Amino acid sequence: MPNNAVVTFVGAGPGSADLITVRGLRAIGQADCILYDALIDEELLTYAPNALKIAVGKRAGKASTEQVFINRLLVSSAQRHSRVVRLKGGDPSIFGRLEEEMAALDAAGIEYAVVPGVTSACAAAATIKRPLTQRGVSRRVLFATPTTGRNVAQPNEALDDLSPQHADTLALYMAGRDRSSIARRLIEQGWAASTPVALVWNAGAIDAISETGTLASVAWAEARNSDAPLMILVGESVATERGAAIEQAAREAQTFAAAQAS
Amino acid sequence: MPNNAVVTFVGAGPGSADLITVRGLRAIGQADCILYDALIDEELLTYAPNALKIAVGKRAGKASTEQVFINRLLVSSAQRHSRVVRLKGGDPSIFGRLEEEMAALDAAGIEYAVVPGVTSACAAAATIKRPLTQRGVSRRVLFATPTTGRNVAQPNEALDDLSPQHADTLALYMAGRDRSSIARRLIEQGWAASTPVALVWNAGAIDAISETGTLASVAWAEARNSDAPLMILVGESVATERGAAIEQAAREAQTFAAAQAS
Repeated sequence: MPNNAVVTFVGAGPGSADLITVRGLRAIGQADCILYDALIDEELLTYAPNALKIAVGKRAGKASTEQVFINRLLVSSAQRHSRVVRLKGGDPSIFGRLEEEMAALDAAGIEYAVVPGVTSACAAAATIKRPLTQRGVSRRVLFATPTTGRNVAQPNEALDDLSPQHADTLALYMAGRDRSSIARRLIEQGWAASTPVALVWNAGAIDAISETGTLASVAWAEARNSDAPLMILVGESVATERGAAIEQAAREAQTFAAAQAS
Repeated sequence: MPNNAVVTFVGAGPGSADLITVRGLRAIGQADCILYDALIDEELLTYAPNALKIAVGKRAGKASTEQVFINRLLVSSAQRHSRVVRLKGGDPSIFGRLEEEMAALDAAGIEYAVVPGVTSACAAAATIKRPLTQRGVSRRVLFATPTTGRNVAQPNEALDDLSPQHADTLALYMAGRDRSSIARRLIEQGWAASTPVALVWNAGAIDAISETGTLASVAWAEARNSDAPLMILVGESVATERGAAIEQAAREAQTFAAAQAS
């Protein structure tokens, strides 16, 4: 797949080295230069023992300047090496600043390919063993982030016009900074205070932590202070109180067994 | 991770065996029984030479009955085997009927775990080398499907209240059946006829095919008849006409080089 490409953008998946795809791991093994983000599990770098490895994590408040620097570094690396991997957390197409780096490569006439990855919302759902969609309940999932390019929380703008008429499940990326104002804003827009919420830190990792509750109970709960990336999932499908669904499944199983026996 | 679980739901990723995660592949290798969906790349099954393999693909029009049958089969497999893998296309938490199967396992008191996968929207974006989000342009991505549980296209319901005020990028799963009515419905709800659209068949696979255009040009174009799964991506971030972005990147690179030299 990435055979003609000089640069391969690779989604590393979130939290844990073994959530990368087989195709992504192969690209790492073939790379002679790897540019990697701050949140990557560095175990992945051991699969490319001979590659030049360059950390390009962004620091808060200087994101824009540093993106131009990363773009330049990516282009110059591609001019010096024949197989460059640009390793990004999660999936590169979702909140991964892919466009800026692709445009820089296009401007320099450099070929590239993309290997998709597991995005954090899916890893968070897997961590709490709940789906993001549910037949007859949740058919529309919206991914958003209250964090801007400069890492400034602006929940009001990101969450404008987001009533339950427009989406059934919300997955809010990089949402750690201003949790209670996010919950308040959603309630103002028509989400019931009883809407189930899951907070998942370090989704996909061995040390993932989650808290579940409702928009009312989670938001103003004592803040868990953590620098770990936080995913907030909102909506009926992430509810952990599921007595009725389990009872219905038990009834269906009995009906099925009776029909088989007759 | 899935060590205590009898059943592990594994996202196979879309289109190609090498888009599974390393963790998912390991679970397959350890399985003694695998229940797999119709769209799975069967190459994955070769990694479990000694496991019992059961195809549980659903046929159109009988989805609901068959889901109860699958639930029952999953439970009885977990009662007979110690490591069951339930292999689903893409990511299990997105349009994967995970809730029904989890509820059946809960009702039977069987432990399970989930290994997330690459969802088709991310693979489709990678196939066309475009992001789903873009700084300052696309900050909200909505995943929806016009297909109901019974595989009946109902684009009007699924696309209700989906104006560009509510989402910047749309990823429409299983959208092959009634393309032109989907496009018409979006235009009626305020999406410009010039909004970029990408149609991606077999996202993630070697034989992936894509067509790009706009809501106006793509929708009523001569239909490509294919049984391959179709992902429709809608929004400015999937535009393939990117002259301005590339020119800006070239200017930024020059400015950066000049600043370095001075």
